[in-house]
Amino acid sequence: MASTLADLAARFGGELLGDGKVVIRQVAPLERAQPDEIGFVSQARYLAQLAHTRAAAVILPPDARDATGLPRILTPNPYLYFARVSALLNPPARPPAGIHPAATVAPDAVIADDASIGAGAVIGSGAAIGARTVIGPNCVVGDHARIGADCLLHANVTVYHRCEVGARAILHSGCVIGADGFGFAPNAGAWEKIPQIGRVLIGDDVEVGACTTIDRGALEDTVIEAGVKLDNLIQVAHNVSIGAHTAIAACTGIAGSAKIGRHCTIGGAAMIFGHIEIADGTRISTNTLITKSLPRAGTYTSALPFSEHEVWQKNAVHMRNLDKLVTRVKDLEKKLKELESKS
Amino acid sequence: MASTLADLAARFGGELLGDGKVVIRQVAPLERAQPDEIGFVSQARYLAQLAHTRAAAVILPPDARDATGLPRILTPNPYLYFARVSALLNPPARPPAGIHPAATVAPDAVIADDASIGAGAVIGSGAAIGARTVIGPNCVVGDHARIGADCLLHANVTVYHRCEVGARAILHSGCVIGADGFGFAPNAGAWEKIPQIGRVLIGDDVEVGACTTIDRGALEDTVIEAGVKLDNLIQVAHNVSIGAHTAIAACTGIAGSAKIGRHCTIGGAAMIFGHIEIADGTRISTNTLITKSLPRAGTYTSALPFSEHEVWQKNAVHMRNLDKLVTRVKDLEKKLKELESKS
Amino acid sequence: MASTLADLAARFGGELLGDGKVVIRQVAPLERAQPDEIGFVSQARYLAQLAHTRAAAVILPPDARDATGLPRILTPNPYLYFARVSALLNPPARPPAGIHPAATVAPDAVIADDASIGAGAVIGSGAAIGARTVIGPNCVVGDHARIGADCLLHANVTVYHRCEVGARAILHSGCVIGADGFGFAPNAGAWEKIPQIGRVLIGDDVEVGACTTIDRGALEDTVIEAGVKLDNLIQVAHNVSIGAHTAIAACTGIAGSAKIGRHCTIGGAAMIFGHIEIADGTRISTNTLITKSLPRAGTYTSALPFSEHEVWQKNAVHMRNLDKLVTRVKDLEKKLKELESKS
Repeated sequence: MASTLADLAARFGGELLGDGKVVIRQVAPLERAQPDEIGFVSQARYLAQLAHTRAAAVILPPDARDATGLPRILTPNPYLYFARVSALLNPPARPPAGIHPAATVAPDAVIADDASIGAGAVIGSGAAIGARTVIGPNCVVGDHARIGADCLLHANVTVYHRCEVGARAILHSGCVIGADGFGFAPNAGAWEKIPQIGRVLIGDDVEVGACTTIDRGALEDTVIEAGVKLDNLIQVAHNVSIGAHTAIAACTGIAGSAKIGRHCTIGGAAMIFGHIEIADGTRISTNTLITKSLPRAGTYTSALPFSEHEVWQKNAVHMRNLDKLVTRVKDLEKKLKELESKS
Repeated sequence: MASTLADLAARFGGELLGDGKVVIRQVAPLERAQPDEIGFVSQARYLAQLAHTRAAAVILPPDARDATGLPRILTPNPYLYFARVSALLNPPARPPAGIHPAATVAPDAVIADDASIGAGAVIGSGAAIGARTVIGPNCVVGDHARIGADCLLHANVTVYHRCEVGARAILHSGCVIGADGFGFAPNAGAWEKIPQIGRVLIGDDVEVGACTTIDRGALEDTVIEAGVKLDNLIQVAHNVSIGAHTAIAACTGIAGSAKIGRHCTIGGAAMIFGHIEIADGTRISTNTLITKSLPRAGTYTSALPFSEHEVWQKNAVHMRNLDKLVTRVKDLEKKLKELESKS
Repeated sequence: MASTLADLAARFGGELLGDGKVVIRQVAPLERAQPDEIGFVSQARYLAQLAHTRAAAVILPPDARDATGLPRILTPNPYLYFARVSALLNPPARPPAGIHPAATVAPDAVIADDASIGAGAVIGSGAAIGARTVIGPNCVVGDHARIGADCLLHANVTVYHRCEVGARAILHSGCVIGADGFGFAPNAGAWEKIPQIGRVLIGDDVEVGACTTIDRGALEDTVIEAGVKLDNLIQVAHNVSIGAHTAIAACTGIAGSAKIGRHCTIGGAAMIFGHIEIADGTRISTNTLITKSLPRAGTYTSALPFSEHEVWQKNAVHMRNLDKLVTRVKDLEKKLKELESKS
């Protein structure tokens, strides 16, 4: 793939300055760009990189129009523009349409003619695979599951029976959609399984990271709305709902029936209690435990600053006596007041 | 599947009040139950839902016998009863017995006649698969591994060589049983691998969540006793033992050779040090780090309450000077005493 | 496999004392060793175990030469010696060389003659598999990926297109090498995907645990240097680099573009911010959050000691008022000073 700078501007907009016939073959960071590559700067503090770059061209915000003599495109959001140029120059490899001879597809599954089912993939009874969707090698799509159009399931993805995935979803290897939620009734010291008869419903334009697990609902469905982006190794328990366009970083866990709002961003290794509600637009910091509902958007944190080990140990041990310390301070305040009144 | 209320009472016990001929086709939460569905109430505070439900019938504790005029079954544990009704009405889909033509089974593996081996599954040399057990598509069961009767391995499960799983186990997709424990001997700045020659032994009635990993023992075995329930994305290191009927929520990690008692409940994202022992019946809270043995049952916690970010930062920074703060308080106490003795 | 003690000493060195003709069939912990097994003691406090062992022989440090009358080998590092004896006596089962008939290998993939490709494995176009390497059942190796010589990919491993793995790597089941990094540009409330066009490059002698995920770089590569050991369920984000011989315990997460030094050890469930650098030889404790660069080696910690739940709650609540507490102490100090100056 290659494109001239003028072609890029025609396709994606922006103001072109300089030689539009320059040929762009790839995107790259400015400091290592080759003479057929394009870079970008979105923040003023990185403009200095322009002095030494070998890039063919650069994408800049309008107020940096004079920061270089290189061929350039001016646009209010250089990072987004760069992403689109990259997507144009790096189209995902598409395996040929059709069912690989080493795949196993149930006779009553409905596979779009232009879908691609990889070697070793197994598609269950009554399942439906949408137009142009790619099911990677060794994926398993359960009975009566539905995968929309233009999806990409990388290798070794598992979608359990009856779960549904919207259009343009990307599911990464090892992710598991629709395993049973963790539900048991205690009975005389043992646990009896509560059948998990809900589904997982995933909207359009969702991306799910590697080895992320989204459990099916107990009675009702687990719901991931459109545009949600989930990183790797995230646990989404049964009956959770995640609002549209929320992004969640890796290693986070969300307990059962939590209701996460839209447009939230949740840092890595956050843990969110079950049966709580989180307002639209909330930000949760890395390593933060959310133990109750957050009715107002804001940024919430419970992560501690680290120290050198010996320093940390010396300080942390007092956590075990913080209540006594507070009592001691109260006591001091009282006694001091008495002394002051006497003097 | 459907059943009359009278049939349910005949099968599962309890006291039937009202029309036993009512037909029940599904379980549902009371607030959205349809006229052929049954709900339950286990706690008095939810009895108000009875006023507006469309459910055909309801399961209630004995002291709520007069809370509704609906057909009802009275039983001391409505949730458990509900679970059993749900299991009756929602039997897991069973693939047909036999070895799928797209499976690969070693000639000397012993597969029960009524077991089901899915498409793409690979069963190793000398492995044994018990009666009525279902091995899902693309599962891999290693050489000389043994899976008991009535187990359900969902798609894409991996069981390494020589590991053993008892009867009625449910293993969810992506879980890995028997990978090597993390054991290395340092040698001149590099690590030399310690062969992990133990196994994983899993008892009867165990459930293992999606993408949970249970490592094989270094010299002896990793042991998961009967009735243990493990949620998703849990790490169980080599030589750990987990006592019967312990339940562990998602994202928890248990380091090597830890010995967890029976009937424990461990919250999500807990971390448990290696080489420690935890008493039977212990409860560990979400996000809690257990650094030493717990010889007495109890509830243990180390999770911090979150705050709004700015508030949190202002407070948390003092963690780094807690020891100095304690010294300052001590100093104040001493000086105040001196002043008091003077006045 | 079996070996005489004399053969072991000839092969691995050390000073042999006692009957060299003793036959050793297995390694074992001293307390349960059988009469054809060998144990070891590396620390003086475990020498007492020698009194009651049934082991055929034992590996000891030189200063314990007289601690037993058993046949023994003296060596400065008994644990390492034991590891090597174990590796000799427990060679990994090697499947036969060649491509299993149920594997799917692209016509233009280059597979070493003595490599072994398991049932259900899928090898992409232009991929290369090195000499003596074993690709386990149902693994997927993407287009143009390269796996070096003498590697072992256990079942159900996924390596994405264009990623590279050095010699003698061990990849455990469920691990995912080369999924897309988590990169999106915000656009009017939605997220637009940044193509992840870098690769994952893994050096020689690396081990990757079960369900560990290593994302491909956004523009440049994610790099895992030689000798790195990664436990299970670890997240390595895009553009991370991990220096040679660093070992990382399970459930740890490393955010994008972090640069971890060589010879570091990182405890379980640690979380490391993105875009920071960690010095060679650094140690990070379990459950510790590293929020900024660590330019000097040392041990760093932010994990809290647990307490019984009620005690913990009583103390932890004060975290929310720590800043006020410090102000109160300051105030006390000031007032006390005033009083002292008066008295």
